[in-house]
Amino acid sequence: MPLLSLFPLRVPDLTMRRLLLVSNSTLHGSGYLDHCQQQISDFFGKCSGVACRVLFVPYALHDRDGYTKTARDKFRTLGGGNTFRLLKSLYDNQVVSEIRKRVLEDGVPYMGSSAGTNVATISISTTNDMPIVYPPSFAAIGLVPFNINPHYIDPDANSRHMGETREQRITQYHEEVDTCVLGLREGCMLLVEGNKATLLGSTNARLFSRGKPRVEYNPGSDLSFLLNDAH
Amino acid sequence: MPLLSLFPLRVPDLTMRRLLLVSNSTLHGSGYLDHCQQQISDFFGKCSGVACRVLFVPYALHDRDGYTKTARDKFRTLGGGNTFRLLKSLYDNQVVSEIRKRVLEDGVPYMGSSAGTNVATISISTTNDMPIVYPPSFAAIGLVPFNINPHYIDPDANSRHMGETREQRITQYHEEVDTCVLGLREGCMLLVEGNKATLLGSTNARLFSRGKPRVEYNPGSDLSFLLNDAH
Repeated sequence: MPLLSLFPLRVPDLTMRRLLLVSNSTLHGSGYLDHCQQQISDFFGKCSGVACRVLFVPYALHDRDGYTKTARDKFRTLGGGNTFRLLKSLYDNQVVSEIRKRVLEDGVPYMGSSAGTNVATISISTTNDMPIVYPPSFAAIGLVPFNINPHYIDPDANSRHMGETREQRITQYHEEVDTCVLGLREGCMLLVEGNKATLLGSTNARLFSRGKPRVEYNPGSDLSFLLNDAH
Repeated sequence: MPLLSLFPLRVPDLTMRRLLLVSNSTLHGSGYLDHCQQQISDFFGKCSGVACRVLFVPYALHDRDGYTKTARDKFRTLGGGNTFRLLKSLYDNQVVSEIRKRVLEDGVPYMGSSAGTNVATISISTTNDMPIVYPPSFAAIGLVPFNINPHYIDPDANSRHMGETREQRITQYHEEVDTCVLGLREGCMLLVEGNKATLLGSTNARLFSRGKPRVEYNPGSDLSFLLNDAH
């Protein structure tokens, strides 16, 4: 009997994991998913020669049928919409653990943008969305051991608006927990292949670690260290 | 025996209610709470001649002692900071019902700005803040029968940012429930005296009602109709 069977929980082989976590679906001045079309093609092109079927999760928008049609037409893939609604529906339909299992244990590729990126991380605590519905937890699918802020935006020096900046909001999060937050500016995305993580796209990402200076990363940067729980 | 004692819940006399709900603590180009100083003075000046004591709730910021000191120094009053943290702490300290009772039944004046305004309404579902902690509910103190979006901001026609506009987020909320949302732009505030509500300040508010056109209100507008549950 193998040693592993002594343990009630199977330890997933994370080398199977394949994720493409995109900041945003539309980039200013270009069409829908244009900015990440090549990366999507590369990502799903590696489906081992079998006909590639995509499970689309339309829970984040109210009109699920319309959203699904848009997705089918435009290969919208996973994500976009309101993060609270998406996560609550994933819990209501009891698929959070199933998605985690399929992605981490069976190597099913996962792609999300915006809300779909938020729910792939540790928690939705760094979403920008309004809490329009109450999910049973802010804990998310947990495909990576850190959080992401999609649509990350730098303060506008000319703005007269006095609401908190995105950075101030992330600082408030770090007053509560020490989970790293990767701020993905519109135009960039994170590719995770097993234990390797790479920043792709046309814009920089900014990493927020509790009590440490913020660090900027260019497209092409190796961010595999973020996949280490101990980071 | 009076008829009222047949009922387990005392029906509050809402003519006692006195609220000052401010969009923001600081307005661009002016000092802290300067933009609503006169209204605050008028609001607390009506304290029936007794020495006016203010209960300050510092739960919305991490450094409660520092925040309280700032409040004492500058008369910061209730509110500001992260709405999720404020509401969770109100629940953790079991003061949600007590504040509701004191304000609605005993006529204790309530002033809040930003987060302090959010928690005074039906729910925090139209906050702009990040969900950095998980409160036991999004239901708030319920001093008024509608929701407010503080720091309401119009779309910037020159922005290249593709995240949802504030109006789009409120529309998502109205896909879930039909509670009215009053968008308080920075610089305005709502004064509630009994069953009368008046918009004060220097900027307009925008009212969002599910399935109806948005309506703009100038300072001085009578918004008492919002206090009618049936609205």
